[in-house]
Amino acid sequence: MKERGVFEKIIDGELPHTKVYEDNFSYAFLDGRPNTLGHTLVVSKTSFRNILDIDSDHLQHLIVATQKVARMLYEKMPNCKGVNIIQNSEPAAGQVVFHIHFHVVPRYEGDGLHPWPGDPLTSEAIEEVKSYLGL
Amino acid sequence: MKERGVFEKIIDGELPHTKVYEDNFSYAFLDGRPNTLGHTLVVSKTSFRNILDIDSDHLQHLIVATQKVARMLYEKMPNCKGVNIIQNSEPAAGQVVFHIHFHVVPRYEGDGLHPWPGDPLTSEAIEEVKSYLGL
Repeated sequence: MKERGVFEKIIDGELPHTKVYEDNFSYAFLDGRPNTLGHTLVVSKTSFRNILDIDSDHLQHLIVATQKVARMLYEKMPNCKGVNIIQNSEPAAGQVVFHIHFHVVPRYEGDGLHPWPGDPLTSEAIEEVKSYLGL
Repeated sequence: MKERGVFEKIIDGELPHTKVYEDNFSYAFLDGRPNTLGHTLVVSKTSFRNILDIDSDHLQHLIVATQKVARMLYEKMPNCKGVNIIQNSEPAAGQVVFHIHFHVVPRYEGDGLHPWPGDPLTSEAIEEVKSYLGL
């Protein structure tokens, strides 16, 4: 029998957490290592590894729950000026718990978080990507 | 008449870009300032500002298109070991173009991108969030 993961234990109430939202398909709770105040994880009640393997029906349920949490935080957290929605798939992308979840990170002026910088797209890079993707 | 935005001009072929994917509701193209090789934006053909105002039907279409692009990049980009899915809502969250889009960032070992660090959630922070959200 497969060992149950930390998110399954949270959903089943076996680990301490602060619940933010729940519906038939999704469960949301405060991240234990928040980027900002109110940082919430929105988890599918059915376990999938990440966005690469979840079926589209469950993914659609999950993104609507994520939207509800985003609206709730944006509306209710004082001085919240925006939100980031983040899903990390596989360890190279920073995924630590292999049970699909979306991060909802409320943003405040001067909270110190910055997007990754990017340099302009070169014509060489365009040709390289096209060759790999068959475009 | 409202001025058309940069993404509407891209979708209509009026600005140069590299198309990655298209269906009835969504359009995907290479980001002009990529975080990594193959960084793609997945845009709703119907213009909404961000995840706070898009209706759930269009959001569901968009996330399924985003998943398709994520799988395509993960499968076809050499040495791709993971993907990040990112949606930024409002300027405080780093949103620059106010037409909803999901970033799909292919990840490679040692590409130098790192998640935002977070400190452990404190009991004071839990109580504060609960008071704001009415939990």
